[in-house]
Amino acid sequence: MVRMSIGELNAFLEREFPEIGWMGIEIRRVDRRSITLGMPAQPRNLRPGGTISGPAMMSLVDLGMYLLVLAQIGPVPLAVTTNLNIDFLRKPPPGDLRAEGELLKLGRRIAVGDFRIYGAEGDEPVARASLTYSIPPDRA
Amino acid sequence: MVRMSIGELNAFLEREFPEIGWMGIEIRRVDRRSITLGMPAQPRNLRPGGTISGPAMMSLVDLGMYLLVLAQIGPVPLAVTTNLNIDFLRKPPPGDLRAEGELLKLGRRIAVGDFRIYGAEGDEPVARASLTYSIPPDRA
Amino acid sequence: MVRMSIGELNAFLEREFPEIGWMGIEIRRVDRRSITLGMPAQPRNLRPGGTISGPAMMSLVDLGMYLLVLAQIGPVPLAVTTNLNIDFLRKPPPGDLRAEGELLKLGRRIAVGDFRIYGAEGDEPVARASLTYSIPPDRA
Amino acid sequence: MVRMSIGELNAFLEREFPEIGWMGIEIRRVDRRSITLGMPAQPRNLRPGGTISGPAMMSLVDLGMYLLVLAQIGPVPLAVTTNLNIDFLRKPPPGDLRAEGELLKLGRRIAVGDFRIYGAEGDEPVARASLTYSIPPDRA
Repeated sequence: MVRMSIGELNAFLEREFPEIGWMGIEIRRVDRRSITLGMPAQPRNLRPGGTISGPAMMSLVDLGMYLLVLAQIGPVPLAVTTNLNIDFLRKPPPGDLRAEGELLKLGRRIAVGDFRIYGAEGDEPVARASLTYSIPPDRA
Repeated sequence: MVRMSIGELNAFLEREFPEIGWMGIEIRRVDRRSITLGMPAQPRNLRPGGTISGPAMMSLVDLGMYLLVLAQIGPVPLAVTTNLNIDFLRKPPPGDLRAEGELLKLGRRIAVGDFRIYGAEGDEPVARASLTYSIPPDRA
Repeated sequence: MVRMSIGELNAFLEREFPEIGWMGIEIRRVDRRSITLGMPAQPRNLRPGGTISGPAMMSLVDLGMYLLVLAQIGPVPLAVTTNLNIDFLRKPPPGDLRAEGELLKLGRRIAVGDFRIYGAEGDEPVARASLTYSIPPDRA
Repeated sequence: MVRMSIGELNAFLEREFPEIGWMGIEIRRVDRRSITLGMPAQPRNLRPGGTISGPAMMSLVDLGMYLLVLAQIGPVPLAVTTNLNIDFLRKPPPGDLRAEGELLKLGRRIAVGDFRIYGAEGDEPVARASLTYSIPPDRA
């Protein structure tokens, strides 16, 4: 069982990181190993042609990994990204995106996860990313 | 000599990518091998404590590499990031950030560059990043 | 259907890259999207404790991606790695390793793939890697 | 001042990692922030055409970063690579290679460094790499 539900994760984000609310990212599902998120196409994150921008995709996986870690360890504001590596594979189709994340390691000091981002149509990923988060040593 | 001056780069960005204007990124210097950019601390890119967020730093180096490439090859809207790898090294101090980028390879098909991001105080980088851009094959 | 069978891939390697024979890497399976390889524990690639070294794991995924690409495009000696990113997740158990690779993109100019490496025991990966290969423009 | 001299680093390697002796890597210089290493062209690490292979370059920077960290913290066999990211920029010229490494962060838990690899001729790097090492928590 996860330590924070979707509702608790959303409430935590709103309280601690109000500035990211404008991205409109939605948690669709989270469990002990994986997470699914949605990112709506909206004016701020679009490029000409109606496709979601690279930086918006980086924000999506960065936040997604943070949420996937929080769901396991509880509300720890001090977990921070130490490495993010992303390959942009193909131009995303216009419209919303979906991110699928998987936790590969949850250690005492670091967590590592893999993400793939998909458009609404088709089953080929538009991007893949891996991320490392540092977990504060003094969490209870 | 570069193919696009700072003024031309700024005009190109405003015309082609109006949505990124809100980041307030400023080109301070660009030549055949390197670029210096500034990113002001402003409400949208801040985290609690007044430090600039990770996603804002990723946007900074992504745009910085694009500008460094454009300065060499001229206005090519279709150059796209294919890989971005970033290490966050230490919490940035509150306030503005500066990015220093260096072009390591400018081939016919890809360009690779290295960036470091610094706070206003101190000479230790708060982040390092490397990026690969794909250059469209049919540019004149 | 793949363009090169396991037997053809092995013969190509022996002819073009005799120096890598000593690694003992075995292709177990390859199809249009994925590959499975085995790497035996042998004196040259071991660390104290009998676990396979990090550089040997990097060689494994580098060769694995090359073989996965060749299986799709035929014998092209000039395909070269342009980026390799690897996370070492946990100390591998003593003994042989297995790598599972997946092709995420096969474009005209680049191919991108993801690999995970597993020990003989357990289902948690000991490493994950992503690789980009550049494909020569003038292949038939 | 560094904690281990070139002679001490070499002795430590020979004692703890005898299997890497065959690479012939030579430490040319090391200080509090940086290291220079040489890698000779020898049959085992060559590709057709007499250039040093990609995996040999990965071994070079992996060992180089380990030595750069050891020089600062003393002989700690348990420091391990957690991430290695490398861009191969151009085909190396035939002959020996030189690696220049720089320590970007030396924290209590992780160390991060940047490397560039050069051929004997020319001042353009043939590869760039960044590495993260995990430092055991219980070192004295």
